[in-house]
Amino acid sequence: MKVFDKAIESRLDRRCTFVALGGGVIGDMCGFAAAAFLRGVNFIQIPTTVMAQVDSSVGGKTGINHRLGKNLIGAFYQPECVLIDTDTLNTLPERELASGLAEVIKYGLIRDAEFFEWQEKNMPALMARDPNALAYAIKRSCENKAEVVSLDEKESGLRATLNLGHTFGHAIETGFGYGQWLHGEAVAAGMVMAVDMSYRLGWIDDSIVKRTLDILQAAKLPITPPETMTVEMFKSVMAVDKKVADGLLRLILLKGPLGNCVFTGDYDRKALDETLHAFCK
Amino acid sequence: MKVFDKAIESRLDRRCTFVALGGGVIGDMCGFAAAAFLRGVNFIQIPTTVMAQVDSSVGGKTGINHRLGKNLIGAFYQPECVLIDTDTLNTLPERELASGLAEVIKYGLIRDAEFFEWQEKNMPALMARDPNALAYAIKRSCENKAEVVSLDEKESGLRATLNLGHTFGHAIETGFGYGQWLHGEAVAAGMVMAVDMSYRLGWIDDSIVKRTLDILQAAKLPITPPETMTVEMFKSVMAVDKKVADGLLRLILLKGPLGNCVFTGDYDRKALDETLHAFCK
Repeated sequence: MKVFDKAIESRLDRRCTFVALGGGVIGDMCGFAAAAFLRGVNFIQIPTTVMAQVDSSVGGKTGINHRLGKNLIGAFYQPECVLIDTDTLNTLPERELASGLAEVIKYGLIRDAEFFEWQEKNMPALMARDPNALAYAIKRSCENKAEVVSLDEKESGLRATLNLGHTFGHAIETGFGYGQWLHGEAVAAGMVMAVDMSYRLGWIDDSIVKRTLDILQAAKLPITPPETMTVEMFKSVMAVDKKVADGLLRLILLKGPLGNCVFTGDYDRKALDETLHAFCK
Repeated sequence: MKVFDKAIESRLDRRCTFVALGGGVIGDMCGFAAAAFLRGVNFIQIPTTVMAQVDSSVGGKTGINHRLGKNLIGAFYQPECVLIDTDTLNTLPERELASGLAEVIKYGLIRDAEFFEWQEKNMPALMARDPNALAYAIKRSCENKAEVVSLDEKESGLRATLNLGHTFGHAIETGFGYGQWLHGEAVAAGMVMAVDMSYRLGWIDDSIVKRTLDILQAAKLPITPPETMTVEMFKSVMAVDKKVADGLLRLILLKGPLGNCVFTGDYDRKALDETLHAFCK
């Protein structure tokens, strides 16, 4: 509402352009405001965090939070362009850097085994902010995302795979309280849970579980949810997830060799229960 | 926000359908909520007023008001279908009936002279709620609107002509206070002002001015703005109209024989000033 107030008070008209300069929250908020202001004005994304550069600024999803769940209100609205300047990362706090790397790791797990292997070798360089390593990781992440989104903009299936760990992660963000953990931190713990569940279903072998834990720890990311999270907290938030259809929660799970995943509601509910109980007190 | 709260508390998922049953405000609010809930769910319009049946339910414009102006926040979002049952008009209050007829008259003025002539003959039947007359007027209005919208969904020019009188009308609604006058009442007075200005510019002859006044009076609609409206009130609201581009207010004005109009910012500002002063104290 503050964006709308300012835009209207400044008498911006339909030919104006909104510029989202900042991290993911700024991009999402500014993008949704651009989608709704005067029924839609131009906007440009200039993401300044790893998270926004490798994920949220690309693909046209915009959304704001509701007290009962994350990103429940929004629009599919494409920016005119996304402008990434990796120099902005020089002053990014450590935790923010790591948080963004969670999404980079995600691309490896769901669809790009070769990129995952590159990350296993280059995680120290990424953590040390080696400009070439960062530029490569960001470029390859954007390519992965753009490929998926161009095949499925409105999330009928394929695009949902970009949400590996996010359903568990959103539950953590909502249950633990927004802002307690960064998005990528919650996604990291969520990916561990999704990988754990995939293993319980017998869909992946244990080497993938181990490699996932190793690379997340190398990126100094959490590998378990906060201790205050209960099974009930997970279940109540997951029930209002956007991927629920006809009452059934669909999840992104790994299946097969590294770099393969499925988006499905067809899984043994027992495995989900076991995972929730394994990660909660 | 109440729609979002209820939808989320009820755990509606992406396969749900929002149904807008009611007048224009309900359709606009429900449509915008459907556009933004989970980034877009299905919705159906079941308009129950003449206004909603002949205008607001058709064409996919949805919007909500901001304290500084009308419909400033919204989305272009098409319903799956529009279901019109003219029996709902049997219990519609008199003023609501007349308000809807303002938009019916508009179609005649901007693009359908033959329909305008039909209305001149059949206004008493419409006011008496003759079912056949109403059904014909509603059908022909929807055809006019659908034709315009199918040629120009996102309002690059042609669609704007559907807003004859609306810029003046919005200023009345905002300045006089929402709810004091019905939308069609404000539009009626606004159309008189637009016609007056067109005449001052020398773009139409005086017979059109007279026929406009006559038909609006036959429909028991206002032909002047409320007495409390000042020139300054008009100017301040018109400055934030969605049709302002590069600081220039574009207006829909009649030009040529009955049934012809233009959407332009290329007019003598003196004529606008004269019209505002002629209709305000």
